[in-house]
Amino acid sequence: MDFKSDMQARIQEIEAALQTYIPKQEAFPPVIFEAMGYSLFAGGKRLRPMMVLAACEAVGGKKEMAMPFACALEMIHTYSLIHDDLPAMDNDDYRRGRLTSHKVYGEDMAILAGDGLLHHAMETMAQACYENPCKETTGAMLAIAKGAGIHGMLTGQVVDVYFEGKPIDKETLDFIHIHKTAAMIRGALEAGARVGGASEEVVEKFGLAGEKIGVAFQILDDILDVTSTMEELGKPIHSDEKNEKTTYVTLYGIEESRKIAAKLSDEAVAIWKELGESCDFLQTLTNYLLQRTY
Amino acid sequence: MDFKSDMQARIQEIEAALQTYIPKQEAFPPVIFEAMGYSLFAGGKRLRPMMVLAACEAVGGKKEMAMPFACALEMIHTYSLIHDDLPAMDNDDYRRGRLTSHKVYGEDMAILAGDGLLHHAMETMAQACYENPCKETTGAMLAIAKGAGIHGMLTGQVVDVYFEGKPIDKETLDFIHIHKTAAMIRGALEAGARVGGASEEVVEKFGLAGEKIGVAFQILDDILDVTSTMEELGKPIHSDEKNEKTTYVTLYGIEESRKIAAKLSDEAVAIWKELGESCDFLQTLTNYLLQRTY
Repeated sequence: MDFKSDMQARIQEIEAALQTYIPKQEAFPPVIFEAMGYSLFAGGKRLRPMMVLAACEAVGGKKEMAMPFACALEMIHTYSLIHDDLPAMDNDDYRRGRLTSHKVYGEDMAILAGDGLLHHAMETMAQACYENPCKETTGAMLAIAKGAGIHGMLTGQVVDVYFEGKPIDKETLDFIHIHKTAAMIRGALEAGARVGGASEEVVEKFGLAGEKIGVAFQILDDILDVTSTMEELGKPIHSDEKNEKTTYVTLYGIEESRKIAAKLSDEAVAIWKELGESCDFLQTLTNYLLQRTY
Repeated sequence: MDFKSDMQARIQEIEAALQTYIPKQEAFPPVIFEAMGYSLFAGGKRLRPMMVLAACEAVGGKKEMAMPFACALEMIHTYSLIHDDLPAMDNDDYRRGRLTSHKVYGEDMAILAGDGLLHHAMETMAQACYENPCKETTGAMLAIAKGAGIHGMLTGQVVDVYFEGKPIDKETLDFIHIHKTAAMIRGALEAGARVGGASEEVVEKFGLAGEKIGVAFQILDDILDVTSTMEELGKPIHSDEKNEKTTYVTLYGIEESRKIAAKLSDEAVAIWKELGESCDFLQTLTNYLLQRTY
């Protein structure tokens, strides 16, 4: 199976699993499930849950054991996008080529749909840990909670919002990228490795690769915001400029930014090579994400 | 020790534990920790964490093992208040006698402070489960996650917001009370019983008592909104009227509402009596909360 078909098969599997975790129209009224589903099933690339599953399999673990954590992580990622898009935050009207949650359901329901996805991520992971209480499951839950939490993604978003419209230095921009984007990718790979039963030493290598991939990914996102079109991105371009955000492009320029991203990407690939051929898919995925060789 | 002194001692213990879980000014910038602490340390009655600890001790468990779950539950309760008060929701300016989070920190930081508390509740519980992975810890986390989640508190809030300004029937009002308020009190008592090692049968009794206490507590809250003063409540009175909310008072009148609350309270007390003298504190607390005999 070639890489693209492999990716598609993995995405299909994650889509099906996510559907089982989000109940349909059970509530009274069903609006919250509709709103959660609207954002969760918007055709995302499912990169983060894919990384959880791939990391678990790479260390010899069973994919089924990693699935609830993979789905929970995607719920957290989706919640963060819904809240980031709110009028009080980035005030974006489009995401993944569709109207954002608050444009469709109103600001109140968008806040609650985000909250609901974060709640349900917690419940999904707690259920998996309760069914099989061990260091592997609880360690995976902890890795995801930390990646998302007040020393991870959340703080990155806070600092990003805090400095909006103000000039920031390179140190602050790196803080934002490491926390807002990279912490969750680190969390995904760590969680997968943990639930798969890897040693602390191996878990740390997965985490380090995740951080490098995450920062590079965010730098490329900054570049695409300048060089891409709305059709290609599925969301408005030049949103950083509109929001007066300092990015890698404004601090380093496009060419230098590309070089920094490439270096980080090479370092991540070196980690996958060191870990051996069980990490081949992760290596290919890293290249695909960061160098667009496919 | 009399009941009031006992309550005070328990509150002090919970305050101290909460302080250890919320780091001070570690972030860059520290605004998010300040905002989280502003709402978390606003002099709440700490009833819900107190119930977690008391339920754990009542079934013979160790309070120390229950403490992270107690603190996490209070973080979730506080997050729900911050988000409920937002301009897009109830748009309240005062809570516990102080300006609400969004009035002090702005709407963006208030959303993030709420998110941060929910994240940190998840992380705090995940950490406790990881340090001691067993049915007791993971069961406690699951009980809290369910009580707070999309079949619990969150759905109650959704339905409450959804029907604002529209007339609702008794069935819908009960749905809101059971979910928005009672599910978390059920979750608190269930979680305490679970982390203390109670049997499924006993856990269910704690949960049932919690549901009855929670509904009665919300009915009394509806009554107080009409009969109390802002000084007594620490938040604006007549807010239900302002928001055109249907309450027990509008559907049943004050006297009938009092009778319904008293009946629920008696039923909860009967459960504590059946469970024996280890539940004496919970029985006294129930009377204190619902009949104000102290």
